[in-house]
Amino acid sequence: MSHDEVPALDLVPLLDHIATALASVRDEAALVAAMGDIMQRIIDVEYVAVFFLDRSTSRLRHVFARGFTEEERLEAERTAMDRHVGDVFCSQQVFHVPEVAIESDPSAQLSPRRHTVRSRLTLPLVGRGQSVGAISLGSTRPESFTQTHITLLSSVASLAGVVYWNLEDLKTLEAQLALTRAQKEELRRLSTPLLEIAPGVLLLPLVGRMDTARADQIADRLLSAVSQRATRAALIDVTGVEAMDAASVSALAAITRATKLLGAECMLSGISPASAVQMTEHDIHLDGVSTFSSASNALVAAMRRS
Amino acid sequence: MSHDEVPALDLVPLLDHIATALASVRDEAALVAAMGDIMQRIIDVEYVAVFFLDRSTSRLRHVFARGFTEEERLEAERTAMDRHVGDVFCSQQVFHVPEVAIESDPSAQLSPRRHTVRSRLTLPLVGRGQSVGAISLGSTRPESFTQTHITLLSSVASLAGVVYWNLEDLKTLEAQLALTRAQKEELRRLSTPLLEIAPGVLLLPLVGRMDTARADQIADRLLSAVSQRATRAALIDVTGVEAMDAASVSALAAITRATKLLGAECMLSGISPASAVQMTEHDIHLDGVSTFSSASNALVAAMRRS
Repeated sequence: MSHDEVPALDLVPLLDHIATALASVRDEAALVAAMGDIMQRIIDVEYVAVFFLDRSTSRLRHVFARGFTEEERLEAERTAMDRHVGDVFCSQQVFHVPEVAIESDPSAQLSPRRHTVRSRLTLPLVGRGQSVGAISLGSTRPESFTQTHITLLSSVASLAGVVYWNLEDLKTLEAQLALTRAQKEELRRLSTPLLEIAPGVLLLPLVGRMDTARADQIADRLLSAVSQRATRAALIDVTGVEAMDAASVSALAAITRATKLLGAECMLSGISPASAVQMTEHDIHLDGVSTFSSASNALVAAMRRS
Repeated sequence: MSHDEVPALDLVPLLDHIATALASVRDEAALVAAMGDIMQRIIDVEYVAVFFLDRSTSRLRHVFARGFTEEERLEAERTAMDRHVGDVFCSQQVFHVPEVAIESDPSAQLSPRRHTVRSRLTLPLVGRGQSVGAISLGSTRPESFTQTHITLLSSVASLAGVVYWNLEDLKTLEAQLALTRAQKEELRRLSTPLLEIAPGVLLLPLVGRMDTARADQIADRLLSAVSQRATRAALIDVTGVEAMDAASVSALAAITRATKLLGAECMLSGISPASAVQMTEHDIHLDGVSTFSSASNALVAAMRRS
C-alpha cells in the first residue's frame, strides 16, 4: 500500500476516542486493551504487539499480541530484549523498516508465518523520560506506515506512558498505605509497654513522642491493667519521652488521678525540666503523686512501701 | 464567525502537541500552562479560564486566565460556583451559548469589558468520574464554537483530568512516604526502650514483632548502654514479644552472649513456650544466661545478687 492509499483518518473522533479510552483506564489490563483498540483505529495491520517493562526482572512482558500464536507470543517475549524491540526500548528511538528484505530479516526465522512481514514499525513507550516498554506493528505489505501513522502512534505512546505511570503510582500508593497502616498498628502496640516489675507494681516506661491520642491509649491500657491485676502501685517513667505539650502534660496528670481513684499508688519518674516548667506555668497539679528523678529511685520507694 | 469559516485544524500536529505537552507535565503549574497553550491551538478566543477544585475549601480556584484583569480574575474566582461555571462543574455537562443575548447575560454585569462576550463555551474537567474543575472560553463573536471545537476541547479536558489525578496521586504518595519515614523513625525509637531499673541494672522490656533488623538495633542499643554505664546486669523481658522466628531467637541468644562478654550478667524473662521449643529444636543454647518466668522474678534475683 503506497503513501497515497492511506485511508483518510477521521481525526476528531479518533482524538475523542483516545481521550475517552485512556481516561477510563483503571488497571494495566484496561490500558493494554485501550492501546490495542486505539492502534487498530490508526492502522489495521496483521501483527501488533505491546511490551511493558517488568521492573523486577528487567525483561519485557508481551502484554498484547494480535496475529501471534501463543507459542509465537512467548517466543517473542523471551527474545524481546535481544531483538529490535530491545533496541527501541533501550535507545528510545523509533525503528521503521518500510520494506523488509525477507532474506535479511533475522526475525523471519522465528516462525514460518513471519516471512509475510514486509514492513515493520516499532516505537518506544516512554514515561517521565524513562523507557517503560515498546509497541511493535508488522504488515504483510511493504510501506504500510506513513509519517502520519508514525506521528499518531508516537502520540498514543506518549499518552500511554502518562497512564502507565499513573497506574504505577497507584500501585506504589496502595503499598504505602498498607505499610502506613501496619506501622501505625505496630506503633500502637509499642507505645504502651507495660510490665509487672515487682509483685503488684506495674511499670510503664514511655519513650518517644507524646500527644493526647497516645495519652488516651496509655490511659486505656494502664487503667484496665490496674483494675484487672492486684496492682498496688503504677510507675510511669517518662525519661525517654521527648518534649510534651501542655495538653499531653495535662493528660498525664489526669492518668495519675484516675489511677489513684482505682486504689493504686501512682508514681512518676523522669519528668524533664521543660515539662516541669510547663506544669507550673499551666498550673497543673499532681496532688498525691510521688515524683522521682529516676525509675530506679521510684522502684526502691515502691519496694519499701510494700 | 460562521461554522464554515473555522480554520482547518491540522490535527496530526495538534495531537502530537497535546501528547508531548501533557506527557511532560510534572506539576500543576505545568498542567495549567499546557492546557492554556493547547486550548489556544484549538481555538484562539479572547477569554479563556481554567478552574480547578480546591478540595480543602470545596471552591473553584481560577488557575488560568486569558483576557481577564487581575481584579476580574479574582471576582470570577469568588463567584465561580454561583455562575454557569459552577453549574457545569456540578452537572458535568457542557454549557454552550452560541449567541449571547447581551441584555440577558447576568455575567455581562460583572465587568464593563464583559459586554463583548457574544459566544460562550464551558466544559467540565472530569477525572475518575469526579468533577475536578472546568474550562471556560468566551468569544467577542457569536457562533465561534463548532462541534469540532467542542469535541476537541472535551478530549483535552478528559486527558487533563487523567494528568490532574496523576499529580494528585503523586502529592498523596509524597505525603505517605513522609509519613512512612516518620513512623519508621518513631518505631526505631520505641523498639528499644531501655531504663535503669535499679543501680547497675538495665531493663529492656521488648514488645511487638521481633525480626533480625530489630535484633540488630537492640544489640546496638543495649551493648553501648552496658559499656557506657556501670552495668552489673541487663534484664531483657520478652513477655510482650510476638512469635519469634528462628533467626530472631538466634540473634537474641547472640545479644546475651555479647552482654556477658562486656562483663555484665544477662537475664532473660518471659520467653514464650513456642520460642522455647524453637530454641531446643534449633539447638540454640543460652549458656550462662539466667532465665525467669517473669520480669518481676528476674528483678528480685538481680537485687539479691547485688
